[in-house]
Amino acid sequence: MRNRALRIISGLGGVTAIVAITPSIGFAQEVSETQAILDNIWVFIAGCLVFFMQAGFALVEAGLTRAKNVVNIFAKNVADAIIGILAFFCSGYALAFGGGNDFFGTDGFFLTGLDINELGGSGVMNLSHGTFFFFQAVFAATAVTICSGAMAERTKFGSYLIFGAVMCAVIYPVVVHFTWGGGLIANISIGDAVYSDFAGSGVVHMTGGVAALVGAFLVGPRRGKFGDDGKPRAIPGHNIPFAILGVFVLWLGWFGFNPGSELAADNLVTGIALNTMLAAAAGGLATAALIWFKTGKPDIAFIGNGVLAGLVAITGPCGTVTPLISVLIGAIGGVIVVYSVLFFDKIKIDDPVGAISVHGVVGVWGVISIGLFAKFDDAFLGRDDAGLFYGGGVEQLIVQLLMVLIIAAWVGIASFVVFSTLKATIGLRVDDEEEVEGLDVPEHGMAGYSADPAFV
Amino acid sequence: MRNRALRIISGLGGVTAIVAITPSIGFAQEVSETQAILDNIWVFIAGCLVFFMQAGFALVEAGLTRAKNVVNIFAKNVADAIIGILAFFCSGYALAFGGGNDFFGTDGFFLTGLDINELGGSGVMNLSHGTFFFFQAVFAATAVTICSGAMAERTKFGSYLIFGAVMCAVIYPVVVHFTWGGGLIANISIGDAVYSDFAGSGVVHMTGGVAALVGAFLVGPRRGKFGDDGKPRAIPGHNIPFAILGVFVLWLGWFGFNPGSELAADNLVTGIALNTMLAAAAGGLATAALIWFKTGKPDIAFIGNGVLAGLVAITGPCGTVTPLISVLIGAIGGVIVVYSVLFFDKIKIDDPVGAISVHGVVGVWGVISIGLFAKFDDAFLGRDDAGLFYGGGVEQLIVQLLMVLIIAAWVGIASFVVFSTLKATIGLRVDDEEEVEGLDVPEHGMAGYSADPAFV
Amino acid sequence: MRNRALRIISGLGGVTAIVAITPSIGFAQEVSETQAILDNIWVFIAGCLVFFMQAGFALVEAGLTRAKNVVNIFAKNVADAIIGILAFFCSGYALAFGGGNDFFGTDGFFLTGLDINELGGSGVMNLSHGTFFFFQAVFAATAVTICSGAMAERTKFGSYLIFGAVMCAVIYPVVVHFTWGGGLIANISIGDAVYSDFAGSGVVHMTGGVAALVGAFLVGPRRGKFGDDGKPRAIPGHNIPFAILGVFVLWLGWFGFNPGSELAADNLVTGIALNTMLAAAAGGLATAALIWFKTGKPDIAFIGNGVLAGLVAITGPCGTVTPLISVLIGAIGGVIVVYSVLFFDKIKIDDPVGAISVHGVVGVWGVISIGLFAKFDDAFLGRDDAGLFYGGGVEQLIVQLLMVLIIAAWVGIASFVVFSTLKATIGLRVDDEEEVEGLDVPEHGMAGYSADPAFV
Repeated sequence: MRNRALRIISGLGGVTAIVAITPSIGFAQEVSETQAILDNIWVFIAGCLVFFMQAGFALVEAGLTRAKNVVNIFAKNVADAIIGILAFFCSGYALAFGGGNDFFGTDGFFLTGLDINELGGSGVMNLSHGTFFFFQAVFAATAVTICSGAMAERTKFGSYLIFGAVMCAVIYPVVVHFTWGGGLIANISIGDAVYSDFAGSGVVHMTGGVAALVGAFLVGPRRGKFGDDGKPRAIPGHNIPFAILGVFVLWLGWFGFNPGSELAADNLVTGIALNTMLAAAAGGLATAALIWFKTGKPDIAFIGNGVLAGLVAITGPCGTVTPLISVLIGAIGGVIVVYSVLFFDKIKIDDPVGAISVHGVVGVWGVISIGLFAKFDDAFLGRDDAGLFYGGGVEQLIVQLLMVLIIAAWVGIASFVVFSTLKATIGLRVDDEEEVEGLDVPEHGMAGYSADPAFV
Repeated sequence: MRNRALRIISGLGGVTAIVAITPSIGFAQEVSETQAILDNIWVFIAGCLVFFMQAGFALVEAGLTRAKNVVNIFAKNVADAIIGILAFFCSGYALAFGGGNDFFGTDGFFLTGLDINELGGSGVMNLSHGTFFFFQAVFAATAVTICSGAMAERTKFGSYLIFGAVMCAVIYPVVVHFTWGGGLIANISIGDAVYSDFAGSGVVHMTGGVAALVGAFLVGPRRGKFGDDGKPRAIPGHNIPFAILGVFVLWLGWFGFNPGSELAADNLVTGIALNTMLAAAAGGLATAALIWFKTGKPDIAFIGNGVLAGLVAITGPCGTVTPLISVLIGAIGGVIVVYSVLFFDKIKIDDPVGAISVHGVVGVWGVISIGLFAKFDDAFLGRDDAGLFYGGGVEQLIVQLLMVLIIAAWVGIASFVVFSTLKATIGLRVDDEEEVEGLDVPEHGMAGYSADPAFV
Repeated sequence: MRNRALRIISGLGGVTAIVAITPSIGFAQEVSETQAILDNIWVFIAGCLVFFMQAGFALVEAGLTRAKNVVNIFAKNVADAIIGILAFFCSGYALAFGGGNDFFGTDGFFLTGLDINELGGSGVMNLSHGTFFFFQAVFAATAVTICSGAMAERTKFGSYLIFGAVMCAVIYPVVVHFTWGGGLIANISIGDAVYSDFAGSGVVHMTGGVAALVGAFLVGPRRGKFGDDGKPRAIPGHNIPFAILGVFVLWLGWFGFNPGSELAADNLVTGIALNTMLAAAAGGLATAALIWFKTGKPDIAFIGNGVLAGLVAITGPCGTVTPLISVLIGAIGGVIVVYSVLFFDKIKIDDPVGAISVHGVVGVWGVISIGLFAKFDDAFLGRDDAGLFYGGGVEQLIVQLLMVLIIAAWVGIASFVVFSTLKATIGLRVDDEEEVEGLDVPEHGMAGYSADPAFV
């Protein structure tokens, strides 16, 4: 998101000022009410697209796993939306964007004391609290959903819900406060360089990916994933159409995720969308070419993950690079995801859908790519002259690496504490019998697919 | 929808005036063409989201029923869209919004004589007839679809189509004329209190629910639903992923349904969306907690209906309550839906997807909740000072109850007449053999899922 | 799209001027920055809806074919998006809209030298290159996807990809240059009549349909499609819910396709949407009535194609006809598609999803209908006074027919050359064994639906 605007938040209650949009061409400069409304309507529509990503995540996860767990997977994804929204309402929004200290905000719990409808009332560009909360809450739901995929097919439903609530209520909001909320990471500067992560390769995806890694490690691999010889065995997904439909839904949703993170309706929105579109296509193409070359087959599950890798990679840099560089960043993301999936198979971390690789590893790549490529040439989405986002050079790369380390440390430790506590108390994993039978009937009392009964 | 604006319609042909938006903060006051266009574009986009709800209804209904009827279910839902749009074009729009009497409008059939493109030409805010028709037509299609679910798996396709056409052409438009069209219900006032139903808990959902109840009663329960002991038996849905994907699609669509009912792009749109989001989540959570407590399992079909109940409940009050009250209204909706489903099972009304409970019963709750909670505290979406929507107190509650009674009486009687006539003539129900075999092959000549044929 | 604006492009690099919108009512006339931004945001959102049509095409094609080929079908549709975007980036956009000659543009390859973010920078209305590229690239992806359906279940994946790349990189862009790019067809005039094809019945759908016809002819029918007696046999689709869900997604997407082609946010957008909605419903109804009458069953696959036929038919005339005429055009499209499908069955062109009929034949109807019906009465979307789109009379009809001939000739010859070359070299068709087994495992190494493995 735009650092500048977010930096000026001094607390959700204390609205500062409506930030005038700096137009790049010679139209009238005043911010009209219509412009402010357009900003809010656009960001809300973008939020709707991001909300719909929940359906995409559910479809990808369900498609790449087994039929006997499909109810559980859809239940988790519905729960993510429910819990994400309510947890963000109770505490997440306040911790993320409230005034406070370097680590978390301390006001705005339950949105109390905030005017929901005042244009610019959030202190973030022209957005009202209604708009800004909507957009941020669907981001939070996204972050937790990433864990769902990596821990699929063997995690207790209740334990997952508790982790999800903590994630949306505390862990993720603190990461947001560190960065877009003006806290710890936002206050790092080396020379002119301050961190940049436009729509959250790090803040959202790497955060989800790190928690997913911790969760997948602690819950252990699925029965049968690794043979007696220690080699990974393929556990085929039960419904490839679902998985690829999910990829399309996520790709669509990302046109809200990235362009919406501009937090305003201005002339830069569609350039960001263009970068997003190109990186996704490049990620898919790179993965396709690599996997086709390596295995002789264009594996469609991998290609889908390649598209998602391109999208995760460009999430951070989408506002600060050219279209051509977007193609490059996406393509490298598509290559990374292949090797990353193979790597986690090798070290026996079982991630049924590749979420750790797609969101975690490629999320890191997205953050770093900003240090490497932003301001690569003059076109630069018209922002280099404003000097808002990017100091450039080695300093920038160091700041980006520090950002990666801080997020990894916080999310890694916090999720380790939560998952370990769950493991030591109510348990993180279903028992063997339930895992073999599938989670659907034991945990939810119904099968995902029922043959027509005979009694009628 | 906004009563004020709709009240001033004196007939579709006789355009009154473009209603100036009353901004809540100090921007320039004039209504520019750009603002008027933004209003129209936004309401159109919201209408697109509502249109997509047809796919959501199809998925929920298909998922919660049996594979042998899936073609019939998708056919009904496509037909709802086709018939809803054309019936609203022929007569629905004219009856609902044309000038006339307290009961129905009398001009604008086939949109003849209306300028489709003039901004503000509909007399409703800045909307053109093109925009306003688009938005209203997709609402009409929604109303009829509700019946489809309650009568699934045993209703003749042809009879369903005829009812659907009458519903969209006459029954539903009259309800709209009663209320948003400035007719019977809109003219009730007790003290300061006039009816309020922002996006249609009553006008749309209860209307659909009442017709669904009449239809389900007259068509009778599915074979095998109630055993010889009179106890209901579970007939499991054949595809839970479809059902939950449908819930996601409907949830998304509601972000058009409720915020779009503002009928303008202003600063209140996203607050309405926020209320909608929170009520849905609260409904889902309340249902989940209750059903988990009652049965020991977090039943995902119930949770999905809990989300929908939260959405139906907040549809009426979403423009006149605070976020915290939205959580409460949604949660109560989520509780009601559980007991309502059990109640209809008990009195042997067979409703395969719970549509009567979700839309009918919870729709009534939405209407009543306005009488209880609107203007509950000062935040109130910034509207209490304008005094446009709400008189408050016991009077308001009485008006809301009158609204419920009038809609129930009209829709109940009208749909009883239509369904009874169909039953007495061409028949409402397929014969036993067809019901056992499933409707797909006898009615539509094809199965929903075909194994690959051997002849190739 | 709006000819006028597109005519003034003299090359992508040489931006001309921002075309002022001519408002139809008396608001302030100046083009504000907010209006220009609104234009871009709206066209981008419309582009998102068009993008999502890829998922709709995938679902329709997969649903109407066999389970053993479903991975291949989703792979082709993902590939269409990937390749369409990248090919349009490399050369398509430049060939279509760059300055050059009557046949193709010669600048703007890889978007080099273009400012992505400048409002109006594309020379097309107020659109930036970022916006305009986004919208055009998703159109290109649509054009190639049409071929996928007609050639389903027997075409080599690699050959399909190569054709898709040539289609998006060269064949389709040249058609666009002929028309919207101000080339060959745009320069035809007979009296006052110049070609009109608002959103591309001809430019997009007929183009896709002609290539699909050539491809289906050269690849030959599926094994078993035509019996020893030469009569066509039905090969039932494996998943009707997918097919109809796809129809809903496409219908939704068309609300971006047609209204977005206004390329501006103005008062005409929602009237275009209204026409689109009505034609789709009328197409569905006409097909349903005809097929019900002919076969005694309301065949839902045909009804779905009837909706799509209504949409394809209105794509060209949607900006220049009244709502009532839209109903007529859509209904005729719905009739044509039935007879067309039967015709291609008769001449033994095997088109598993009816794509040649829906897009090709009905696309021709859409182009011709403009010559017959545009300016049919006074309502006319408010454009007749401007005289921008339509000369009218026999001259118009002739121009439209010339347009059909030129597109058919170019696309027919070009795709014949490409497909023939592929057939003569790497081969166009999988071998018999693979076709019988299904393409999924041999080509992609995985099945679409996997039973849960036993080893866990």
